[in-house]
This record gives sequence, C-alpha cells and structure tokens, in this order.
Amino acid sequence: MTEISGGVCAAKGFLASGIRCGIKPSSQKKDLALIFSNSPCSAAAVFTSNKVKAASVLVTKENIVNGKIRAVIANSGNANACTGDEGMDSAKRMVKLAADALQIDSGEIAVASTGVIGVPLPIGVIENGIGSLKNSLRDDDQGNADALEAIMTTDTRKKEIAVEIEIAGKKVRIGAIVKGSGMIHPNMATMLGFITTDAAIQSDALDAALRAAVKKSFNRLTVDGDMSTNDMVLIMANGEAGNAPLVNNENGFKVFYEALEYICVALTRTMARDGEGAGKLVTVTVSGAESEENAEILAKSVASSSLVKTACFGADANWGRVLCAMGYSGADFKLEKTSVSFKSSAGIIQVCKDGMTFPFSEDLAKKILSEEEIEIIITLGEGGPKASVWGCDLTYDYVKINGDYRS
Amino acid sequence: MTEISGGVCAAKGFLASGIRCGIKPSSQKKDLALIFSNSPCSAAAVFTSNKVKAASVLVTKENIVNGKIRAVIANSGNANACTGDEGMDSAKRMVKLAADALQIDSGEIAVASTGVIGVPLPIGVIENGIGSLKNSLRDDDQGNADALEAIMTTDTRKKEIAVEIEIAGKKVRIGAIVKGSGMIHPNMATMLGFITTDAAIQSDALDAALRAAVKKSFNRLTVDGDMSTNDMVLIMANGEAGNAPLVNNENGFKVFYEALEYICVALTRTMARDGEGAGKLVTVTVSGAESEENAEILAKSVASSSLVKTACFGADANWGRVLCAMGYSGADFKLEKTSVSFKSSAGIIQVCKDGMTFPFSEDLAKKILSEEEIEIIITLGEGGPKASVWGCDLTYDYVKINGDYRS
Repeated sequence: MTEISGGVCAAKGFLASGIRCGIKPSSQKKDLALIFSNSPCSAAAVFTSNKVKAASVLVTKENIVNGKIRAVIANSGNANACTGDEGMDSAKRMVKLAADALQIDSGEIAVASTGVIGVPLPIGVIENGIGSLKNSLRDDDQGNADALEAIMTTDTRKKEIAVEIEIAGKKVRIGAIVKGSGMIHPNMATMLGFITTDAAIQSDALDAALRAAVKKSFNRLTVDGDMSTNDMVLIMANGEAGNAPLVNNENGFKVFYEALEYICVALTRTMARDGEGAGKLVTVTVSGAESEENAEILAKSVASSSLVKTACFGADANWGRVLCAMGYSGADFKLEKTSVSFKSSAGIIQVCKDGMTFPFSEDLAKKILSEEEIEIIITLGEGGPKASVWGCDLTYDYVKINGDYRS
Repeated sequence: MTEISGGVCAAKGFLASGIRCGIKPSSQKKDLALIFSNSPCSAAAVFTSNKVKAASVLVTKENIVNGKIRAVIANSGNANACTGDEGMDSAKRMVKLAADALQIDSGEIAVASTGVIGVPLPIGVIENGIGSLKNSLRDDDQGNADALEAIMTTDTRKKEIAVEIEIAGKKVRIGAIVKGSGMIHPNMATMLGFITTDAAIQSDALDAALRAAVKKSFNRLTVDGDMSTNDMVLIMANGEAGNAPLVNNENGFKVFYEALEYICVALTRTMARDGEGAGKLVTVTVSGAESEENAEILAKSVASSSLVKTACFGADANWGRVLCAMGYSGADFKLEKTSVSFKSSAGIIQVCKDGMTFPFSEDLAKKILSEEEIEIIITLGEGGPKASVWGCDLTYDYVKINGDYRS
C-alpha cells in the first residue's frame, strides 16, 4: 500500500469541483462541492444515528437504497436541519439541479449539508451556482482541493488521503476527503466523509467494508460527545480499475478492506487532532478486555471524560480519573488487574498497577504528557481483545470557540 | 414546612463535630467529621454506581444492610479509593475508632471519604484525632458548621438546609449537609450527603423515601458527566420527634417524603450552582414526554451537552444544540411537536416551535441568558410527564480548575 496524492480524484474516473456560490454571505470561502464518477458506481453510506436528521440525510438515505450513487453535491454554511418541509424540498431540489447538470438520474445523486441549523437553505444561490460547479469539475489534485475547501467549516487542517493497492495484478486506488472538527461553530457538529475508489466491488460487499471500517475509525472518535444531525460517510466504487468484482470475505476484499480501514483511521486521527480548540491528539488504547466491544466502551469513556481531557490539557498524570471513567462506563473489568501507562514521543511511563498507584517520576510523566500526541494505555490482563479510541484535550479554546455568540 | 437553621443538628438528638486532624498536610482546613445520634436510628443510603468503589463505600454498604446506622465518620483530603487491601483495612479502622470513641457497635457506623485517590489514607492522624473529634460533638449550629467544613473540598458554597414539618401533631425536623461541586480538584469527584431526622420511620420506608428523593434530585444533577468512586447519600432517623412510626405510602409518610424531596432538590440546585468553574445554574425542564423517565433522559442529555453548556456560558440562544442533544439522547420524541424557550428573571422567550426556528429578539434572548440562573424549557406537547435536571455552564474556569497540575 502506497500513499498517493489526489484525494477523491486519485481513483480513475472521478472528478470533483468546489465553488463559492454565496451560502456564507459574509465569507469569501467556497461553499458548494461536487464529486462525480464518469461511470456508474456501487455505493454505500452510513449516517448519523441522531433522531434529529437533516433533510440531506433523509434524502440521501432514500437514494442510497439501491446502492447506485455516482455523484455527491454538498454545501457548507447551512445544515438544512430543523427546516421542515421547505428544507426537504430544498434538499430534493439540490439533487435535481445536480442530476440535470450532470445528465444522470436523480436516484444516483447524494446530497450533504453542514453549517448553521434552523435557517432556511438559500436554494437560489445554489441554483445560480450549479452551472459553474459542473463546469469546474476536474479529475486532478486541484479538483479535489476545491471540493475539500468547499465542505470545510471550522476545520483548521485539510483532511484528505489516498492510497494505491494491488489486487490480483490490478492497481486499485482509494481516496477520501472529510470535514469535521468536533462540533462546529457557529452552531452544530458535522462530520462529512466522501470516499472514492476505482475498485470493482458489489454494493453489498462495499456496504460491509464501509460499516466495518467506520466502526473502527470514525465511530471511535470523540471530541466532545455531541453527535450531529448531518453526519454522513459515503463511498462510491466505479470499477474502472478493472479488477474482478470483489466479494465479501474473499482475498482481494481483505486487501481492499485493510486499505479502507487505514484511510478511515488516518482521517479519524487528523479529525481528533483538529478537534475544536484541541491542543493534543489523545489516543486511548484498552487491551486484555473481555471483548473488543468491551475494550471500546472502556476506551471511549476515558477519552470522553471531561476530567481526563482537562488533565491531558494540564499534562497531569491523573490516573485516578482514568480508572474513574472506566468505572462508570458500564463495561465490566477487573480493577485489581488494571494497569495504566502514558506514552508519547518523549517516552512511556507506568503510573498504575493492579488498580493501585505505581511509583513514578512526576517530572517524566509531565514531560511525556506535554507532547502534542499522547497515548493512554490501559491493560486489563495479558493479551485479549483490544481497541483504540481517538480524542483530544479540553482547552480554554474549546470554551472560547463554542461560547462565543453566534452573530 | 418551615426552613430552620442547624443542618444535621436541627433534628432532636443529633450531634456533630469537625476538626483538623492533618489529612491535608498543607492546609489549615478541617478534614475529619463526625455525626452522631444519641439514640439508635433507622438508616438508609444510596451509593455510587461506579464499578470502582472507594473502600469507605464498600464498608458502609456492608454496615447499612441491617438499616441501623447511628453515626458517620467522614474525612476529606483523601478518597481512600484504588488503595487495595490496605485501604479496606483503613476504612474498617476508621469505623472501629469511631465505635470505640462513641461506645457503640461497629455495625452502627458509616464511613465516608473524599479527596485524592490512589494515595494511602494516613490512618495515624485519624487515630490521633479521634478523641478530640468525639469531644467536640455539639448539638447546635456550630457542631453542624464544623462537620460541614470538614467534608468540603473545592466547594465554594456551604450546602446545608433544615426544615420543620408537622406530622399528626408532632413537630418533625429534617436537616442535611452535602459537599460536592462537580468533579473535585485535585483529583476526583465526590458527592457526600448526610441527612438526619428525628422522625420515627421504619428503615424500609426510609429507604424507599430516600431512593425516590435522590432519583428526583441528586441523580438529576449533571456538572461534567463524570461519576465519582466515593458518592454516598445517607439518612439516619432516630424517632425522637415521638410520632407514630411512618409507614410507606400512608399520610404522614407523604408529608415526610415531600419535605425530604424539598431538601434534596434545594441542595442539588446549590451543588449545580457551585459546579466547578460554574457561572450559572442551568435548569432544563422537559414536559409533555411519553414518560417521566423519557423526560429525564432528554433533559439530562441537554444539560450534559458540552455545546449547550458553552452556549449558556456565552449567553447564546443556540436552540439547535438543544435539539441536537435531544436527538442523540436515545429517547423518543416528536421533533415536529417540539418547542424550546429560555427563561430567567429577565423574562421568557420562545426560540423554537414545532421543531423549527421561531422568530425572536436576539437582544432579549441574550439578556435572559446573561442571568445567573437560567432555565431551558422544552415542551413536547400538551401536558404529559415532566422532569427537571440541574446543571451549569462550561467555562474557562472549569478548564483551569481541572487542567492544573495536581501538585
């Protein structure tokens, strides 16, 4: 597996564009993106489990049913959530505009939105921009960069990746862009992820791969525990690599899946690092658990704890807060077999053994925890199932970004 | 019902004391408390559901089984949690010291601790202090004040209350002290609550009353979502008021229960107001729900949301975050019937109707949300079950208090 450039345009046959159409009136930033495959695709998607779902989520959920999405239109600056029937009409109108411009069926279009909620989507400016958006489609790095810029909101880092793998002698590419940095100022969350691949793969296998990869990556990301109305991760596979169609659990599928998981985990880490106001990437790894699910619940509880997060901010080796967060996670574990270590590029230090304090150098611990990427390593016994969760520290800036008045 | 002074010493036959024995070596604050009833008591308690439980919790759980606790010894400055067998020995030793000093049975003693975890309890200083602690017992306001001071950690407000009620012609008193202000610097949480009453009431009825009252008060408090290893609320009833013993669900019981719930809710509000770094008391009330449990889940999700809490800090009428937090709570509700208003002493303003924006004055909303006590009122339809949850805003000071290095 080789990392390459190009993001969503890395795979054969995919084009992308991004323009400023005016959804964010006071900003000069791009706000409308399009990703398009020259040929029909298999597709799969996962959506927010929030009961309050944006119109774009509801419309895309309907269109993805047949597994045939080959284009995405996405806007930033407005979430089109809590906007009632008018919002549904606007989401459908976005789909129709893209379908007409691309001359494909409406059922092959996904729509995504991110931004302020409860404000009607200015569909007029999207109508005005659709021609320019379609004409800007490019199959190169610039096309990818434009689309990425157009979906970003408070993101401070560009989150893109692409890899090339080989499956039965054929070069296969997978690329992705995501946006999201915890909950989004001025109003809401949103994680949007768009993945493209030229692999030939049936939509049910693609669906299985995406769900498994998201479970081990984006679903193990915690910035502030809030979950958006608009979250969506979509993958389109157009088969232009020419490989024999991948089938779930066969050899080629495994290679493809591993690359997909690699991409999703890499992007998850970048998102955690870019959490609102985050100063540090905090990885929490639990091993020796009863099950992987159990390990994940424990790790998530630690990574989500406001007290652990502020301790990370303060470079405080406060292992008591780690055990406490495990204790209220709801998952079982044996306290008397629990060890905790802190790790970073400055070293590794054990601070708790058998559920009790383990003498350590506070100076070294502080040095380790002062790095920008730190890991909390929890072992519940020898070997056994393992899970990592990614989060960030809780800082003054988080409060500042989210406490500021919207206007 | 009349509010009176005296806290845990208000009820007949109860004495209390608090001294500095030296558990907090660098502090001149009191750190050891005793509450004692002259006569035997019925007793009941609720404990943390954290799987990591302090030694004091484990020992008191055992002693309360027969419902006969008549004294509590409590220390601050050390949680005696994650301290292994040695910690268990120390907790038992505290019970024995109190039993010997008071000349009562060890089985009639509860023990509670709060403070730093993972550090061995300095049992020697408690042994040295026990005589002075016993000799300082008083049945007046001062005794109560001393005990309260000795259990406080980062609390910035004294949390005590007492009321007098009449049951079948007899004056009955209930009083309480609590400590807790979210999770406690430098290390852990802890909510300790001690309630005394001279009512005659059987321990099963007392247990039922306490559980019901705690469910509607302390269990509806959220400061940062973390739950301590040491939480404990204990009630002792010595019957010295001379009423006919109260039986669950009879008339006198109802009067008693209402007073107990009043006390617990009042103390809960004070704790929320005193949340670490809190600038504002935030009450979230949901009505028109399918069930009271459903209303509570929704309200708790809103009150716990970091985004809602920072919006309260910023006096931002960000109703989208309110709906979003309801959406990921796991509880059902009809978005299209949901309304949201903000209320304080500066007025009330509706900001969301039928799940969509409801035109409002941003200036008035900001004025309302700038008060020190604000309420988020969510209605899911006409009438129907209702629940209130208490929390606070998320401020720079929260990050500061919890991010500071322990030493």
